[in-house]
Amino acid sequence: MHVDHVGVATDDASGLADLYTELFDAPLVHEETFDGLRVVFLELDGEGYFELLEPVEEGTTIGRYLENRGGGIHHVALATDDIAAALETAREAGVDLIDEKPRPGAWGHDVAFLHPKSTGGALVEFVEH
Amino acid sequence: MHVDHVGVATDDASGLADLYTELFDAPLVHEETFDGLRVVFLELDGEGYFELLEPVEEGTTIGRYLENRGGGIHHVALATDDIAAALETAREAGVDLIDEKPRPGAWGHDVAFLHPKSTGGALVEFVEH
Repeated sequence: MHVDHVGVATDDASGLADLYTELFDAPLVHEETFDGLRVVFLELDGEGYFELLEPVEEGTTIGRYLENRGGGIHHVALATDDIAAALETAREAGVDLIDEKPRPGAWGHDVAFLHPKSTGGALVEFVEH
Repeated sequence: MHVDHVGVATDDASGLADLYTELFDAPLVHEETFDGLRVVFLELDGEGYFELLEPVEEGTTIGRYLENRGGGIHHVALATDDIAAALETAREAGVDLIDEKPRPGAWGHDVAFLHPKSTGGALVEFVEH
């Protein structure tokens, strides 16, 4: 596995995209509206991205996160070529799963989240392109 | 730039290292005590790491982070081969710098942090190996 992306919750994806592109030489390579969120991917060198997440509807988990903690790093996603096996390893290790099986995520990828109470407070996503 | 590591604040670096190694196939490749912290690096495929940060002295910023927010993702570090130029770009963009110039960080690398109030709440570190 490698770091696929770092997810950042924000109430201004456009502004943050412009800044991050300038600071980190990370051009915008994909954007869409998904699950009540504006989702913007900025591509770093190599295989990594920033994923900027801005709520555009009421009631999203990102919206609640912004209300409770403000903008910032929301999760880290690890790329795997076998997300089912990754989830099974986590299940066998006693990790609570937010997603018991992979589901369609942004950019057409399969994703599954582990519960942060099982991973030291870090919200970790598995993603298979 | 690419994602060098994701820093995770924890009060149990050993336990979390064992779990992450199992879950993410990320072996422990370096550990040291640095700046009042036990610092453990776990190597992912490619160029990325988890950096686990456990306070072993009173008064560390990681200790305060744990008290205020609990364990979890603390920062993301981006690798650059010219940290001085990266800082100058940030300064010109009006970003507040925690470190005005690079300083020695863990594992003998040069590091500098940007202030999260300038980067949408995300704590970002530049690192040059």
